[in-house]
Parts: sequence; C-alpha cells; structure tokens
Amino acid sequence: MTSFTEQISADLNRQAIELPSWAFDNAGTRFRVFTQNGSPRTPFEKISDASQVHRHTGLAPTIALHIPWDRVDDYGALARHAESEGVRLGTINSNTFQDDDYKLGSVTHSDPRIRQKAIDHHYSCIDVMNETGSRDLKIWLADGTNYPGQDDMRGRQDRLADSLAAIYSRLGDEQRLVLEYKFFEPAFYHTDVPDWGTSYAQVSALGPKAMVCLDTGHHAPGTNIEFIVMQLLRLGKLGSFDFNSRFYADDDLIVGAADPFQLFRIVVEVIRGGGYGNPDVAFMLDQSHNIEDKIPAQIRSVLNIQEATAKALLLDHSSLDAAQRDGDVLAANGAFMDAFQTDVRPALAEWRASRGLPEDPMRAYAESGYAQQIIADRVV
Amino acid sequence: MTSFTEQISADLNRQAIELPSWAFDNAGTRFRVFTQNGSPRTPFEKISDASQVHRHTGLAPTIALHIPWDRVDDYGALARHAESEGVRLGTINSNTFQDDDYKLGSVTHSDPRIRQKAIDHHYSCIDVMNETGSRDLKIWLADGTNYPGQDDMRGRQDRLADSLAAIYSRLGDEQRLVLEYKFFEPAFYHTDVPDWGTSYAQVSALGPKAMVCLDTGHHAPGTNIEFIVMQLLRLGKLGSFDFNSRFYADDDLIVGAADPFQLFRIVVEVIRGGGYGNPDVAFMLDQSHNIEDKIPAQIRSVLNIQEATAKALLLDHSSLDAAQRDGDVLAANGAFMDAFQTDVRPALAEWRASRGLPEDPMRAYAESGYAQQIIADRVV
Amino acid sequence: MTSFTEQISADLNRQAIELPSWAFDNAGTRFRVFTQNGSPRTPFEKISDASQVHRHTGLAPTIALHIPWDRVDDYGALARHAESEGVRLGTINSNTFQDDDYKLGSVTHSDPRIRQKAIDHHYSCIDVMNETGSRDLKIWLADGTNYPGQDDMRGRQDRLADSLAAIYSRLGDEQRLVLEYKFFEPAFYHTDVPDWGTSYAQVSALGPKAMVCLDTGHHAPGTNIEFIVMQLLRLGKLGSFDFNSRFYADDDLIVGAADPFQLFRIVVEVIRGGGYGNPDVAFMLDQSHNIEDKIPAQIRSVLNIQEATAKALLLDHSSLDAAQRDGDVLAANGAFMDAFQTDVRPALAEWRASRGLPEDPMRAYAESGYAQQIIADRVV
Amino acid sequence: MTSFTEQISADLNRQAIELPSWAFDNAGTRFRVFTQNGSPRTPFEKISDASQVHRHTGLAPTIALHIPWDRVDDYGALARHAESEGVRLGTINSNTFQDDDYKLGSVTHSDPRIRQKAIDHHYSCIDVMNETGSRDLKIWLADGTNYPGQDDMRGRQDRLADSLAAIYSRLGDEQRLVLEYKFFEPAFYHTDVPDWGTSYAQVSALGPKAMVCLDTGHHAPGTNIEFIVMQLLRLGKLGSFDFNSRFYADDDLIVGAADPFQLFRIVVEVIRGGGYGNPDVAFMLDQSHNIEDKIPAQIRSVLNIQEATAKALLLDHSSLDAAQRDGDVLAANGAFMDAFQTDVRPALAEWRASRGLPEDPMRAYAESGYAQQIIADRVV
Repeated sequence: MTSFTEQISADLNRQAIELPSWAFDNAGTRFRVFTQNGSPRTPFEKISDASQVHRHTGLAPTIALHIPWDRVDDYGALARHAESEGVRLGTINSNTFQDDDYKLGSVTHSDPRIRQKAIDHHYSCIDVMNETGSRDLKIWLADGTNYPGQDDMRGRQDRLADSLAAIYSRLGDEQRLVLEYKFFEPAFYHTDVPDWGTSYAQVSALGPKAMVCLDTGHHAPGTNIEFIVMQLLRLGKLGSFDFNSRFYADDDLIVGAADPFQLFRIVVEVIRGGGYGNPDVAFMLDQSHNIEDKIPAQIRSVLNIQEATAKALLLDHSSLDAAQRDGDVLAANGAFMDAFQTDVRPALAEWRASRGLPEDPMRAYAESGYAQQIIADRVV
Repeated sequence: MTSFTEQISADLNRQAIELPSWAFDNAGTRFRVFTQNGSPRTPFEKISDASQVHRHTGLAPTIALHIPWDRVDDYGALARHAESEGVRLGTINSNTFQDDDYKLGSVTHSDPRIRQKAIDHHYSCIDVMNETGSRDLKIWLADGTNYPGQDDMRGRQDRLADSLAAIYSRLGDEQRLVLEYKFFEPAFYHTDVPDWGTSYAQVSALGPKAMVCLDTGHHAPGTNIEFIVMQLLRLGKLGSFDFNSRFYADDDLIVGAADPFQLFRIVVEVIRGGGYGNPDVAFMLDQSHNIEDKIPAQIRSVLNIQEATAKALLLDHSSLDAAQRDGDVLAANGAFMDAFQTDVRPALAEWRASRGLPEDPMRAYAESGYAQQIIADRVV
Repeated sequence: MTSFTEQISADLNRQAIELPSWAFDNAGTRFRVFTQNGSPRTPFEKISDASQVHRHTGLAPTIALHIPWDRVDDYGALARHAESEGVRLGTINSNTFQDDDYKLGSVTHSDPRIRQKAIDHHYSCIDVMNETGSRDLKIWLADGTNYPGQDDMRGRQDRLADSLAAIYSRLGDEQRLVLEYKFFEPAFYHTDVPDWGTSYAQVSALGPKAMVCLDTGHHAPGTNIEFIVMQLLRLGKLGSFDFNSRFYADDDLIVGAADPFQLFRIVVEVIRGGGYGNPDVAFMLDQSHNIEDKIPAQIRSVLNIQEATAKALLLDHSSLDAAQRDGDVLAANGAFMDAFQTDVRPALAEWRASRGLPEDPMRAYAESGYAQQIIADRVV
Repeated sequence: MTSFTEQISADLNRQAIELPSWAFDNAGTRFRVFTQNGSPRTPFEKISDASQVHRHTGLAPTIALHIPWDRVDDYGALARHAESEGVRLGTINSNTFQDDDYKLGSVTHSDPRIRQKAIDHHYSCIDVMNETGSRDLKIWLADGTNYPGQDDMRGRQDRLADSLAAIYSRLGDEQRLVLEYKFFEPAFYHTDVPDWGTSYAQVSALGPKAMVCLDTGHHAPGTNIEFIVMQLLRLGKLGSFDFNSRFYADDDLIVGAADPFQLFRIVVEVIRGGGYGNPDVAFMLDQSHNIEDKIPAQIRSVLNIQEATAKALLLDHSSLDAAQRDGDVLAANGAFMDAFQTDVRPALAEWRASRGLPEDPMRAYAESGYAQQIIADRVV
C-alpha cells in the first residue's frame, strides 16, 4: 500500500458532502413505505442522526433542510442544536408537490392563484434561509404532464421563467437559486425541467446567482453524465450535485452502488473542471434508503464519494496527457483505469487515523450503540 | 365512412376486457397520492363504479379483485352485487408487498416462515376464488433486491419455483395460475421475475394450468412487445394481458395513450396468434389514474383497445400476405399502415348504436350524473 | 370525409421538405450494404431521382448536398440540372468522418494540423455554398471517444468552440451554420455534441447566424423530442430538422414509420411555436433506406410528414385551450387525440387533385416507369 | 498485497478465453472502417496475431473461425499452423448476412430456396467443424425486419425452428449448436432471436446439444445480464459467452471497459452457477477494435476478464452468506463490494511470474517487436 502524498491528503481534507435531512426518515416506493424502528420524529432528531455521519467520517459537516418537512418554530434553536452536534444547517429545499393544489403544476400552473401560492412558498423558504444563514435555495419541481395535449408546454415554460424571476428577485446578495432538472417522474409525459439544457437556459436568463443542480439519477438511460458535469463547469453554471445511483430510473440508491466507475468518472471531471474544493459547487446526497438502515447507508455513501475522489486524485496526469497527445487510445485508457483499479481503502484508513477519525467508520458506528439507543428512545 | 362487415361486427361482439377494482381508488406516485371526491369506500362501491364502464361500452363485463384490498366477509354477497350491476367477478390478484415481513421478499424469501406466510396468502386467495368462482389467480411479485450481493439470485429462483409449485398444487381443475413479470420496480437491482423468459420457464415447470401474464408496461426501453405476444401465443403460454401504457417506466397510463401504434401492433399479433376471442387469453387493464377522473379514464381505456381492435380487424390480409411474399417492404408496410390510419370511430359509433349502447360512451357517462351522485353520496 | 378548410389548404401549400441527395444511394449497416439496381452513379443522377419525389408530391422542392460525396466540377451546371428537373439545390453538409486523419476527431482534434484540415474543409463547403447559392452549412460531427480517458472532453469542447468560430467567421451575411447533435455513434463513450444543450450553448456563443439542427433519431431512449422542439423555438435557435424515425438507436427509418403519434406531436409543437411556414426553420429528411426502394421510400416519407401536418392543422384549439384552462386532463387529451385519429388521406388526395398532383403519389410513381428506366439505363 | 491462496491460483489456471479471428482484422462502423498497418491478410496471419495474446497471457488457447471469412483450402494446414503457434482452432461461426440473397432474411426467409441456401451454409460449416475438430457451431442471425408489417413474425419463428432442426440433425454426437440472441441491429423493428427467452425456447425444442450464447452487448438498456447468466445456468442451457462491453447499443468495446463492476457481477454468477472451469460453458470475446490497436486490445480484454475472475474468486462467501441470511443489506453488499474493490493486479503479476509468463503482458507485447514486424512484413 502506498500512502497518499501530502498534496492528496490536503486535497482530501477539503471534501465536504451535505446530507439531506429526509434521508433519515422512512422512505419507500409507491407500493410500500417500510417503517424502521428508531426513525426520527422531529427535525431535531434528524439532525442528530445526520451528525453521526460526520462524527465518524469527518466528511459531512452540513445538513440540508426540506420545507415544510423540516419546519420548526425556532430555526435559531435548530441551528444551535446542529452546532451542538458538530454540524451546521445548509441548503433549503422547497416542496411544491405535496398539496392538492399542485396536482397539475405549481410555478408553471395556468391558474395565477396556484402559481402565486407556489411562489409564496419559495418566498417563505427564503425567509427560512435568512434565519438559518443558508446560501442556497434548491428547487426541484414535480411539474409536468401525463398526457399529450394535457397542457401547453410552451406556456408552462414561459410561466416557469416568470415565476423563477419573481423568486430570484427576493434572493439576498449572497444567496443563490439552484434549479434541478429531472427526466421523468412523477410526471410521465413531460416534465417542465427535463434536462440540463432547460435548466441552463432558465438559470442563464435569471442572472449570476442562479445555477444548475445535477442529480445523478435524473437522466435518460445511457446518458454520459460526466460530460454534462464538464459542460456545466465549463459554462460556469454547475451549482450543486445531488448524488445517488440508479440501475434504471431515479432509483435513489446509495451513490456508487450501481456503477462505481461512473462515480469515479464524474469526480474526475469535477476535479478537471475546477469544481473540487470550490465553494461554488455544492456536493449533496439525495437518496432513498427504502430497505437498508439509514445512518450507515449515509456513512457508506460519503465513503463511496471519498474513495472515488481519492482514486481521481491519484490519476497520473502526466501519463494520461502524454498518451492523449500521442493518440494512444489504449495507453490513455490504461492510465485512467490504473487510478480506478487502485485500492485506496488502506490509505484512507491511514488518512482517517491521522485526523483522529475511526479507521473503519461503518464499524465505529455499529459499535457506538447509537442505533440501539434511538430505537429505545424514540417510541412513537 | 365504411361500416364494418358482418364478420368484423361479430368479431367485435366477442371483445371483453376485465377492469381492476383498484383502478377506481385513489392512486399516485411515491411523491403524492392525490385524493378525489367520490372515491369508493368499499369493494361494493368499486364494483358499482366499474359497472359504469360496462354500462356505457358493453366491453367490460368482469372485475378483477385484489386481496386483501377487496377482502369482504361475504363474497357471495359481493358476487350478487356485481350481478345486480350487470357485471361479474373475475381474476383474483394476490398481494405480498404491503407487509413489513415482505421487505426483502415473499415467496422467494430465505426465511421459511415468511415464505410460508406468502404461500398461505395465495392459498387464501384460492379460497376466495372458490367462493367467487374465479378462474385465474394472478401473481405479481415485488420480490427482488436493491443492491448487488444483497441476496443470492439463484437461491431465490429455486425458492420461487418451490413456492409456486406449492401454490399450483392447490389449484382446482378449472383454475389457473398466471405469473406476471416486471423489469424493475419496486426492486431496483434485480427482480425475481424480470422478463417473459423467466416467467415462461417457471410456469412451464409447473404444468398446463400455469400461464404467463404480459403487462405492457413491464419491459425494458425499446422492447418489441408484440414479438413477445407472438412468441407466447406460439408457445401456448400467454394467459393474460395487463394493459396500460408508458413513456418511460411502468407509468401505468391509459392504454394507447403513449403509443397508439404499438397498441395496434399488439392487437394485430393477438389476432394473428389466435388469442382474440379465445377464453384462454384474458384481457385486463392495470392502470393508475393519478390525476385524471377514474371512471371516464377506464371508459377511455376500453375504447382505445376497441379502436385498436377494429383497425386490426380491418387489416387486408390478402394484400399484406402478397406483399410479404413478394418481399415488397414498402407495400407490406403500406397495407399495415392503411389499417392503422383508418378512422374507425364512426363505424364503432354505428356498431354501438345497433346494440343499444350510447354512440359516445364518454359523453353518455358525463351526462349520466353518476359522478355528481357519488361525490354527494360518499362522504367519508 | 370532411374537406380541408381554405385556411388549412393554404397552410398545406406552404410545406416544403428538403431531400438528402445521399438517400438515393446504396445504404446499409456495418454488417452489409445491399446494392440496388439503378442506383445513381453521379450527383446529377441523384438529383434526377430526388426530383421524382417533388414531381409526384409537390412537397420536396430542394435537395441537400453532401461534400465531398456530391463534389462536381461545375456547381452551376448542377444547379441548372436541378432547375431543369423542377427542383433547386439546398443545404450543404460537411463531412469530416471519412478520412483516416479523422479517426480520433476532426474540429476537436488535439493536433492543430488535423483541426485546420477540418476547418479548411468547411471553408471549401462555404465556397460551394457561394456557388450554389445555398443558405445553410449543416455540420454533423462524428467526433467523440470510445473509451474513458481516451481524450480530454473539456479540451475538445474548447477546441470545438474555436473551430466553429473560425468557420462562422467565413459565413456570408445571408448564410447560416447549423450544428447537429447526436447522442452516440459512431463514437461510443462520448460524442462532442451529444445533446441539444451542448449545441445550443455552442451556437449561442457564435452569434445569430448559428442555429441548432434537431435530428429526430439522435436522442436517448424515452426523450420527449417535442419538448426540445418547443424549447429551441422558444429560445429562437431551431434552425432545421433532420427527419427520420427509430425504434432503438439512430435507425434512420422512414419518418413516422416507428411512431406516427410522436411525429404528430412534433409537428404540433412546430406549428405552436411558429416554426411552420417559417423560412428560418428548415425541414429535411435524413434517412437510410437499407432494404426498401429509395425513391418511393422518400415519397412515403414526405407524405407521412404531410399527413402529420394536416392532422396537426386540424387540431381544435378552442376545445383544447378550454380543456387545458379547466384542468380537464381527459378532455384536453381527447381533443388532442381527436386530431390524430382523423384520417386525413382522402382530404389530402382532394388537395393534391386540386393542384394538379396525382391523388396517390406512391401509385403514380410506380406507374411512371421511372424505376424500370433507371435500372435499364444505369449499367455500372 | 496478499498473494492468492493455492485454491485461487489453481482456479485461475483453469481459465481459457477463446479469441475471434475477426478481431484482428480492420473494423469500423457504418460511417467508416479505418485501416491499420499490419492487418492480417489471411486466416493464417490472423491466427498468428491471436497467438500473441496467448503467448503473453496464457489465457487464450483457442481461436474461433468465421465462415466464409476464414475459408481455406486446407483446414488441416490451418490447424497445424495454429498448433505451431501454440494455440488451437475453436468454435465455427456461420455467416448468413453478407449475401444479397439474405437482404430480407436467411433461415427465416419465406422463400424456400434462400432458406435452403442458408441451411446449406450451416451444413458446410459443420463440414469445416469435422475437419477442424471443432465442437461448437455458433449461429448469430441478422434476420429480422425494419418495418411493422414487413413480414409475418410468427411465420418466421416457425421457419426458424424448422431450419434449426435441419441444421441440428447434422451435428455429430460431440458437436453442439449454440444460438445467439440480439436485441436489435442490423434489423431495426424486430429481430428473429431478440432475447434469451426466444433462444432458450428454440434450443430447448431442438435437444440437449443445442445451447444459448449470451453476448454481453445484445440486451436492452438496463437489462440485468447477470440475472440471465444465473437463469441460463440454472436451466442448463448456457452454452457460451461473447464478451465485450457497451455504453449504449452493441458497441463491441473492450470487455470491462464500460462497466467493470458489471463484468465482475457476471463472473460472480458464472462461478456461483457452476459455469467456471466447466467445459460446457465457453468463454469467448466478440469485439470490434475500431480505433485502437487490435492485438494489445485483445490482451487488455483477456486481462480484464482475468481480473474480474480473480476478484470474484476472492469473494468471502461465509461473510456474504451470513449477511444474506441475516437480511443485513448493507453488510451483504459490503462483502460483495469488498471483493470488487480489491486490487488484484499485483497478485496476478505474481501468479503470472510463477508460471513463466510476463508480469505485465501489455508491456511485454509492446516490447516484443511483433507490431513493428507485421507492419514491415504485411505489405498489401
């Protein structure tokens, strides 16, 4: 085993991955939500759970909130609770898909009343951001249609632009709007922000504080996601990632579980494009732990990203560049695969030990007794 | 407009499409189930709703039940209620995906207790069949895994075979087991019956009373579904259809809504392979009306199938066969498209009128006042 | 049968679809190119073949050329030949994928010599345009990589921008550059212009004379193409269409053959977005008739587009708008489907007859003896 | 680094991967075949090239032939040449897709003359097998249609069965027929053997000497290939593999290049199902090296399979089984990933050294001078 160089160790120090508060709650599919003992009953408990991930990995210092799921009376108290657990509050996510009014759309709805209701919801999210000190308002819209002819796609796109402009105008100088795109689901014929191109065109029309969010599960089959990462970084519009993995649709599995090589390729492009250790690009998880335990699943997720990052940092750019310059396809691919094939786990254990972190975070959490404690404590 | 020939009119008389009781209940996605006023509160009310479809179309004489969703104390009473509404009870669908025990599998589970529980559930479904006089036990399994290595796929397949054999052994002489396959969802890494090949291999091992169910939404992108229809009819193992349509995954939209040409091609193969008007091949709907009104959505669905059938019956086989024999690609495709392009709606209106049915079933239902009545009556 | 209104008849008069000269040549797959008797031996003969399509349909007044496939000594003579056949020369397509130098890229290549060679090729295409009076330079690039790490995607994207800027700078005031995107093939890991977002970002950086070309076969499975049509028209950047159809990849089948409903939806969005009868949006075919006769296949193709257009023009917008405004999903979809289900062929035959065109162009061509003539004449 | 156990070392000794003679020839896409200097001019030279792979890896002792591409006057001479190069002749592949007669089909064609011609071709392949001592006749058919209605899919399936029965009847006692399936291409609407289910049904009807060939690139997007491996082994019908990899369609890239984790999962199922080291399951490559050097690309390919195999052999089944039995999703997946994440390259280098093979076969080949030699020798 080779230890990491000073440079790589230092680079790894800069990694920070935001956790979603909702990852700790019960989750499932349309067929069934399986409940787990010890599930958090309040936003405070979700933050406590999330802090376990940071405690054992040093990788997850912030928690994203979802409004209204994480609505509390006193966000200052929530922020102080987070601090007491060693973490901070992060991105605010809006939600315009769980109200009967939004059945046919929210910010794109043809009814001005519903549209304004959705805009107002985002204003209230900005109010929360002002209280929590959050920088980013992340917008994922369930807007779309199920049947051809159901609505006018062009009119919806124009209303989307208007609504986003209204929301954008409320942002503070240091705040950002990050617009997520999604290929399909829950709308099945069209979604109003289906691809990076649409998100890019919409946020470009808004201004410099509007950015694109790339969720790794929100693409058509076969899409080369790292290409989009490259392109958005090149265009200066990659605001954040929602990491997860998928075999088929938006499966929301543990990041790196379905295709670890794809995760590696994505991280390589992040580094190549200046997105690593860059505060303008936020790394977040957005997953759904339907059948596995949630806290260790989140630990596994941040470790998977860290392992992919360590491999990407090991990439021998002088060999790679030389082979690319020579047009030596096999040598270039060989240099690339060499980094991927390297087993970085021993070096990462060493890196952790040197920082006072457990060498094996999965085991450390399992042995911590936290899981047993919350099952005992959280009687509904 | 050309009226239908006597032969086509007679062929259309033989069409019967089974409705799923659950299509009349509230439905949605993992993000939201939108509730509708007037939703049925009991299996009896679901049957009343379903009977509206038959009343206005003459196409939907039977209703499939889902156990335990449609469990009642007295199935005789339910059957009599159906008869009083002009319809009959049909296929019994089992459900082994909504119990915490089934989180990691049901008939494939490695724990013999859970496996037996799932088998016992199917026995109780057969008991219901004995009471209702149903012929078919339809089995769709949510069994599968989300992560590579989570379980042993081979062991699960062997246990599936054993469990199905146990269930099969309980069938009466006139009863059948129909095994549905599904590409993915709710399991994301593998499903235990992912494709027609697996269903075919499993039911072939059971015996002549076991058949395959083809759900039109349960295939990989790009799959030629009519080929599978052809193959299963050729192999004598097509037991039933679950009709619906999809743009992407198992969207469960109104059949024919996403790709009416595909529906036409499927019906052409059904007729070609002797599956039309053949009691051994059951036609059913299995859809999820998330945002549209349920009763008219079911009316629309059976009409879509009827229109596709009328077009398929119009196919000029002498022209088609001649062109195929001559290797004239454009002429053969032209004969095929000619049937599809024909507007059969006027002739179908005439066919309906001649049978005492409303010419426009959608309008007849809208004007019947039934929707207003159930909203008024069904106060929860 | 209802005849068309004056308005629809007039709208149909404005339709013009450009044919690709290469559609008349032998075509095939990587496994085999089947040769057909009577294949054109020169660009002049290709234009004669193409003119047959216009002669019988009145829909295809221009022919796109491909350089170097259609290189001739005297483009004036070629243009005069076209005129004598009742058609005109149209778009010029460049080709940077059939020279060993381009094995690893053309305008994106890391070697400045090869890059300049590819740029120079485009300059020579502009020279041809100046001679033929063509407005559009259409660029489809085979550039991409087959293996991760093979080359630097970001560097290639930057070089693409530079090369396009050089080409753009040579355009005359009335000329345009139209950049096509393609999901995959012949490159299998990444293509340098894989999606509309990339093409849009690149042409936006160039200026108002650069536009996007949408080839209907160049998308990931499940992509909602009419959404992209809507979006590009909304953004003012839809320059042209390459029509064809596909079941799986870039199958290059007869447009409308695989999914006539999709073609209808696309045309509806073209009209909705002001792209119909708009000289800024060019309609072209780009197909590969591997096994069917080429001239009738092109006739079939333009007729398919015309039928879809007639249906789209029949759309009852007042019913549709009202249903959309009311949020009546089924009524809105019903109005949409009503137009699609209408059989427009009799009215189109009438429209043709009133313009001195054959009522049945397929039959008219078959009976013209042209096919027999070219087989007899074109002995290689 | 841990060295391999004796058991694993012994297991690795049993690995043998057959190379396709056509992998050494020029290859490309429908857009371009790029030629390489030093390409083999005869079947003898292809075998010499292939033997280089075995020389440096010890993994590729046999070569598959393709008839008529590898037709020679004296197969005994070819076999002796192979022996002199340290390898042997293997599977015979038939070819019924490169003759104008087969434009609309071969063994499925409606014209009995063409059908018989295709059957006769297979008889002649069996004649070659009798001369070369080959066991397997591998049949991949390009048969299918491009347009709905073009031909009768059911009739074609029946004719396929008849033709295969005729071919099967000619097999010697120790010979086998292996039927490959393919999702699409070169046919675009339907292929006559599109999926494993069809191949399985067809070979099951033939008898015990007929088996299925699984080509890893011949599936719909998202298909779980290792499930099919499991199922075919369970059913006793997996006859052989064609290995390659793909991002989108049948890209025919270097095996393991697109998704090394998928390759690992496939090999795990091969071992689990008793297919490893089992003479009844043949491992072959079938790739298309369009832009990379062919001999080192084949070396890279067999090394990729060996690495995946070594990882799969390292799988800790006691941990895995325990976690699966406990329903511990994360632990089971963790045990699985642990094997995949291990870097087996140092141990494989050691294994090679202990067998007198070069530690780094890629480098050994590069330094051998063979590439320079054939470029100098093979002047066309």
